Parts: sequence; C-alpha cells; structure tokens
Amino acid sequence: MTAPDPTGPDPTVGELSEGRILGRILERIGASAAVVGPGDDAAVLAVPDGRVVATVDTLVHGPDFRLAWSNAFDLGFKAAAVNLADVAAMGARPTALLVALAMPDDTRLSFVEGLAEGLRAGCAELAPGCAVEGGDLTVSATLTIAVTALGVLDGREPVLRSGARVGDVVAIAGETGRAAAGLRILFDRFRDAEGVPVAIDADALGRDEQEAVIAQLRPHPPVSLGPVAADAGATAMMDVSDGLALDARRMATASGITIDLHASALGSDLHGALTGGEDHALLACFPPGAVPAGFRPIGVVVAAGPSPVSVDGTPYEERGGWDPYADWDAGRG
Amino acid sequence: MTAPDPTGPDPTVGELSEGRILGRILERIGASAAVVGPGDDAAVLAVPDGRVVATVDTLVHGPDFRLAWSNAFDLGFKAAAVNLADVAAMGARPTALLVALAMPDDTRLSFVEGLAEGLRAGCAELAPGCAVEGGDLTVSATLTIAVTALGVLDGREPVLRSGARVGDVVAIAGETGRAAAGLRILFDRFRDAEGVPVAIDADALGRDEQEAVIAQLRPHPPVSLGPVAADAGATAMMDVSDGLALDARRMATASGITIDLHASALGSDLHGALTGGEDHALLACFPPGAVPAGFRPIGVVVAAGPSPVSVDGTPYEERGGWDPYADWDAGRG
Repeated sequence: MTAPDPTGPDPTVGELSEGRILGRILERIGASAAVVGPGDDAAVLAVPDGRVVATVDTLVHGPDFRLAWSNAFDLGFKAAAVNLADVAAMGARPTALLVALAMPDDTRLSFVEGLAEGLRAGCAELAPGCAVEGGDLTVSATLTIAVTALGVLDGREPVLRSGARVGDVVAIAGETGRAAAGLRILFDRFRDAEGVPVAIDADALGRDEQEAVIAQLRPHPPVSLGPVAADAGATAMMDVSDGLALDARRMATASGITIDLHASALGSDLHGALTGGEDHALLACFPPGAVPAGFRPIGVVVAAGPSPVSVDGTPYEERGGWDPYADWDAGRG
Repeated sequence: MTAPDPTGPDPTVGELSEGRILGRILERIGASAAVVGPGDDAAVLAVPDGRVVATVDTLVHGPDFRLAWSNAFDLGFKAAAVNLADVAAMGARPTALLVALAMPDDTRLSFVEGLAEGLRAGCAELAPGCAVEGGDLTVSATLTIAVTALGVLDGREPVLRSGARVGDVVAIAGETGRAAAGLRILFDRFRDAEGVPVAIDADALGRDEQEAVIAQLRPHPPVSLGPVAADAGATAMMDVSDGLALDARRMATASGITIDLHASALGSDLHGALTGGEDHALLACFPPGAVPAGFRPIGVVVAAGPSPVSVDGTPYEERGGWDPYADWDAGRG
C-alpha cells in the first residue's frame, strides 16, 4: 500500500479514531430494523416465533480473497452472500448481520466505506429487510471479515441435512462450478511471472468468462428460495459451499442414504460441476412431485450404497471439494 | 513454531482435515442445549420471549493477546468472557456462542483443543447453560478468534446506555483497572531486550501481581449480575471494556447527562481505575435506593455539564481509555 497521508482526503484507519470509522460505516449500512440496533453493547432483534437461526463465516485475506482481484464493495457483498445462504439453507429468512472487521492500520477509510456499501447491497439484493445490526472493529495484520447472520423461521420447521429419504428427488437452486471456473480464470490469467495476483483486465475476457469471474467475486446465492423450499416440503437442505460432490456426501452421510446424481443434469463440465465450490447454491431433497419453481432436479435419493454419492449409479469416490486446511496454498496479492 | 511432525502425537492443523479438527473441538465444547446445535448450516436456538440479544467481539494475535503470555485455555476463556459480558450488559442471559476461528496452518491441534476447553470453562463458570453452538474454521496468517454471543431477556426490557437519569446512583460490579495493571506487569517484566514477550515466571510475582495478571489473561466479568441489575430497575448499563472514564463518557453522552464519579470509591490508584480497560465490569445507573447486591456506588448522575464525566465535580477531560486504531503499537510474541 502507499504511505499514509494524514492531510489527504482518504486517510488510513490508523490515523482515525474507532468512533470516526464507525460513523462512516453507520452512514452506509442503512436503517436498522432491530429492537436495538448498532451502538449499544449488543443488538436486540425480534424473533416472533421464538426461534433464531444463527451462523458465522469468515473471509480471510490470502486464502479467501486477494485484494488485486476483489474490491471492497465486492468483498462486502460476498461476505453478506455466503452467510445469507447458510441461513436460507435452514429454510429461514435472514434478518440481521453482525460484522467483525479486523484490519491492518494502513487500510484506507474508503475501503471500509466500500465494504459497508457492499454489505448493504448484498442484503438489499439477496435478503430485503436484512441489515447490519452490530459489529466490532479491531486492528490486525491480516484483513479478516467475520460475519454472523441471524434469521427467522416464520413458524416453519428448520430443514436439516439429515432428513433425506429414499425416493426423494435431489434438486438444486443456483449455479454449481461457476465460481470455481471464475477462480481458475483469475489464477491462470491474472497473476504475474512470480504468481502474484494482478488487476483484472475485463476487456481480455469473453462474456462467459466475465460472468464466471463475477460468480467468484460477487456470488448471488438464491437466498429467497430457502423458505420456498421449506414451504414445499423439503426433507433436507444445505448450502453448497465446498463443491456439490463433497456437500452431497455430507448430506447423504447425515441422512444415512446415498445420493445418486444424474450426469446429464450437471452440464457439459461434469467435473467442474461436481467439485467447484463457492457458488452457494441450495441443494435440497423433496418428495416426488414437490420440487418448487427455482429448483431443478439433478438426482434421486437411493438406499445407502457402497458410497454416499454416486453418478448415474457409479460410486463417486473422488474427494471432490475444498477443505481449507488440506487445500490451502498460502499466497500473496 | 517448531517444524511439523506428521507422525507426532500433536499434529498441526495444516496436516489435518477440517472434519478431524472439528471433531476434536466438538468433543470438548460440551452438550448442545439448542434446537439445532453444531453440524448443520446454522444453529437454531430457542428464544421464548421472541427477542434475541446478539453481539460479536474479536481477539487478534498481536493487539489483543500474545502467545508467550496467553495459553490456549486462557484465550478461549477470555474470548467467551468478553462476549458474555456484552450480553449481560443488556440485562440478558447468554445462551449460545458461535466461534469463528482463523488459524495459521502450523497451529498445533493441542492448541485448538485447549481453546475449546477454555471456551467451555468460560461458559460453565460465567454463564451456566450457555454453550458453543456453532462456528467456522479458516486458515489465516494471523490467529483470530471472533466470538458471537447470543442471549435471552426472559421477558425483561433491554437495558440501554441511553437511559441514565439525573439523580440516579452510578454503580459498578466487578473490577476496574486490574486487568490493565496486569498488562503493565507483563509489558514491564516479561519481555526480552528487544521488547518481545517471553514466558511468565509466576514465582517472580507477588500475590497481588499474580491476581492482576490473571485478571488480564482470564477475566471473570460478573455476567450473572446483568439480569440482576435489570430486575433491580437499572436505567442504563454497559460493559466497561475500554476504561471507566471512556465508557462512562459514552454512557453520559448517549443519555444526555453528566456522570460525576467519586474518587474515594475508586481505590488508591485513581488514574488506573479511570483509564484501565479489559476488566469487563458492569457499569450501571439505578434510582436511589435500588442498587442491588453485587454493585457498589461510585458516583451520581447530574445534569449535563461542561464535560460528560467529572470526578468529585471537576470535569475529567483526559481521553482515558483504549482505542484500537489510535493506540495500537504492533508487536511480536
């Protein structure tokens, strides 16, 4: 980063008080819908049916994003999206985010503002009515965005991973393999000779490639379809964050069945569709005839076989997916 | 850290799958009390009165702790304690933690286990019935522990910072200045010639000094007194995390009054009591005669004067407290 300039229009957070940074964030996150919103020791949120859904997910500079590729707005949007998808995967409607932001003290104020705008836009586009209702600012050597998402079930029963039954239709809403294709484009085409990420030249990309890169940097999971699936009678549901094969394996294991996927339903890049993570599609099982609009059938639930996942009846044994500790190759940029 | 030894009894997290690390954590965090506990996309928690209290706070290696001074158990305990105190400060009873843990891949598995045990012990000692109900594991260059705490009001109204009224008694439960005294001991006595933290030699410390160090490394905020204060009619309450003077200033500003503190109630080290943070005492205002057991009067609420905080009638103008961006001096160890 460039050297701090205390007289410039875009100071670093290290030159500012926590109160001033917080003020800039609060101006950008929109109106609170909470009983008690940002500014006290804790937020208080209405949960009319007496149950709250809660999840946390973290984006870390290095393994989860590179600043040469992600701008602040996209990062805020993605941090919201990945957490909203987890709430949706329970059949719930997201109502609030809490954002724990740990930043190097040479982070520019404009970056924090962009992040807040991205969080707000992510909520507005994917989960209208949901807002940032609290958070925490800390200094850190590593830019880290931990988002907690809270949601309400509106009287529905939560949809777990463990409820899939033999004979159910396996269906998906959203993309699979697209965000990973975008990441591959970034790694292949926008790094320098030493492998360090460099700025994206969008003009060098075809339309499909641009869309794949956007799917990676600013994913749009089908958050509103979570409650729709629950209302349609989904027996099991989860967010596909680590790849379809790995997450289907988790669902099958939790449910004690086998998920048989149909290759013909997974597009021309079968390997990519099975192993690519980070699209945050919703994978769900429904009784036959109950698949709601927005979901497309991709397989069936069968009795537990030799492997938790098969493709057209053949056991699928590749690990197929992303495991942060097994897979991470530390990187710069 | 020492080099990884894949055949040793204490592997690094980089040598293990996320599932194996998670298994070790789940064994140590105790039984779930949730509708849906750890293991699905999100937790589901019962909130019988239809309102949930939610807060997040982060401990970052460097500014918030040093591994030469804090062991994994103490860190887990502290990560729980600071968040439980924020829930208590609303008059609520903590019921669940979500823990987002970002670790370097050379972190030892035993460290993760110790952290989980500390989180469990913090809940058991400070907020019985509260448990870790969810979380997230990520790899990061900087060890970071972001804890979200959730709580219930059991039909009470939340106690805000903004409700203090002229004539109220200002009271505190817990210590003030003790954790900062402990940090001073650590900085003065347990760093090498280059200023890098080194292991604590407890035998070199007197009993008072040992207690101050423990207050810094493993704080015991009076979490159970939060609901007690609410039931007693507290008009305002907050967690003293950044120092009594700074946090009282925040409460006074939010309430539109002045808080006049009594020097005689703040012990022999007045400056330390006013400026030392991280004890997570509960600062509260009560109508005269309503101060419950566990709280001790330290001042009165008067009409808004020239400064939000005064001591024996004299405006207190020192900034007095910890501001993470203004105060942080990056450090090793």
